[in-house]
Amino acid sequence: MTKKSTPKKKAASPKPRVKEKPVILVTNDDGVTAPGIKNLVEAVRHLGKIVVVAPDKPQSGMGHAITIGQPLRLHKIEPLFDDVETWSCTGTPVDCVKLAVDKVLHRKPDLCLSGINHGANHSINVIYSGTMSAAVEAAIESIPSAGFSLLDYRIDADFTGAREYVRLITEKMLKTKLEKHTVLNVNIPAVVPELLKGFKICKQAYAKYEEDFIERNDPHGRHYYWLTGEFVNFDKAKDTDVWALDNNYVSIVPVQFDLTNYVLKAKLEKSWK
Amino acid sequence: MTKKSTPKKKAASPKPRVKEKPVILVTNDDGVTAPGIKNLVEAVRHLGKIVVVAPDKPQSGMGHAITIGQPLRLHKIEPLFDDVETWSCTGTPVDCVKLAVDKVLHRKPDLCLSGINHGANHSINVIYSGTMSAAVEAAIESIPSAGFSLLDYRIDADFTGAREYVRLITEKMLKTKLEKHTVLNVNIPAVVPELLKGFKICKQAYAKYEEDFIERNDPHGRHYYWLTGEFVNFDKAKDTDVWALDNNYVSIVPVQFDLTNYVLKAKLEKSWK
Repeated sequence: MTKKSTPKKKAASPKPRVKEKPVILVTNDDGVTAPGIKNLVEAVRHLGKIVVVAPDKPQSGMGHAITIGQPLRLHKIEPLFDDVETWSCTGTPVDCVKLAVDKVLHRKPDLCLSGINHGANHSINVIYSGTMSAAVEAAIESIPSAGFSLLDYRIDADFTGAREYVRLITEKMLKTKLEKHTVLNVNIPAVVPELLKGFKICKQAYAKYEEDFIERNDPHGRHYYWLTGEFVNFDKAKDTDVWALDNNYVSIVPVQFDLTNYVLKAKLEKSWK
Repeated sequence: MTKKSTPKKKAASPKPRVKEKPVILVTNDDGVTAPGIKNLVEAVRHLGKIVVVAPDKPQSGMGHAITIGQPLRLHKIEPLFDDVETWSCTGTPVDCVKLAVDKVLHRKPDLCLSGINHGANHSINVIYSGTMSAAVEAAIESIPSAGFSLLDYRIDADFTGAREYVRLITEKMLKTKLEKHTVLNVNIPAVVPELLKGFKICKQAYAKYEEDFIERNDPHGRHYYWLTGEFVNFDKAKDTDVWALDNNYVSIVPVQFDLTNYVLKAKLEKSWK
């Protein structure tokens, strides 16, 4: 005798699952009023629920600074776009990411995007950049992230080509199963969109600033120094971000926050016994 | 016929070359008045000509921040020790290194030492630390460097054991032919010197801070947030700095400023064509 399987009582049919939109945290280092961040949001707002938490003033060159010795303020402000919750924060870009996760979203977003920075963050700039440090902080928090920079400092820079690549790369990030500590450093050449040749996955070029401080006296006769400096690229390899940008490619450098120099570690383990 | 080589006229015999003392730049992030920097100088002043250029106020958590939007001031102050030129700077630890090279020393020092920091800079702390960022900046400038930190925040911490290892490691650095971009992140357990078991060359542990902001109202009724957070180590490997420190070893992590994630670079080159 074959045993008939008893059909289970059919449960009330569940409502068709609507796939939830990904939550995308947006920040920058030029401040919440900079055109770059508005262009970033414009490029990706159809891709998810966007929440902006950005500094209330320019924070360029702040690197990975956090605010320990002072309190932070957070204010909900006029949204950048109607459907985009927007917060202004008195802290650094890294503070913004920490506060956004803990006190605004109360969860990890699915993605964090930083920028679009007014000016280059290729090569050694990654280490001074508040834009990139915000993205790195997100990755430390296990949130895949990207920082975007346009090689044009001007307030009225044309972000048309940049927006296109921000959208394209964000779509790719959302489609790809990314490792949770992923950080991408994306730089976009300052050329008309028709001249952009596509993107290249690159390494960080070895370059630095040859320092030069302007020395002057202030109106009260006291001496001061003001940082300036000339960018010098020592790296002639063709797989660097600087090469890609010089040749009208959008450069993408995957970044990590394990700073261990494993080559030197192996050497010292042998020679410093 | 063989041609005799004409002996060259002997030049006046040069004075016997006195080997010049190495120039060692010292900085920190706790400020020029912190006990830690005085202990560092005390430990190494017999090893070279020491010049101190350090922040005029605490700069903990400043990471790799640089001052772009404001002028910097530099003042020669009462020396930490009679033979040690000492300068106080209004900028960040990274600013101090840049200014020291360009405007105080007018040359690259042979070594840059940063610290001794009051508190740990192991694992992820390397990325937030002004002490370590100063050392990294020196390495970008092709100056071998080390940052030293004692795992004791207190103003009256006992630096006896730390001084011993600072001297030992600095001697080793001066004796070794080091690659010009060398940076060492040295952390010292907060135990009596007799319990220190030696040093270990380590990798940076994967650890992070679980964020938690204190929320309060100020005396005027306005809301604020203040960063705090609990340190969590996710890395149970035995070659990490956290393991070494937990087991009373001084940890030495060689650090690099090429942040390229080469593993992810190779993956994306294949999958993002």
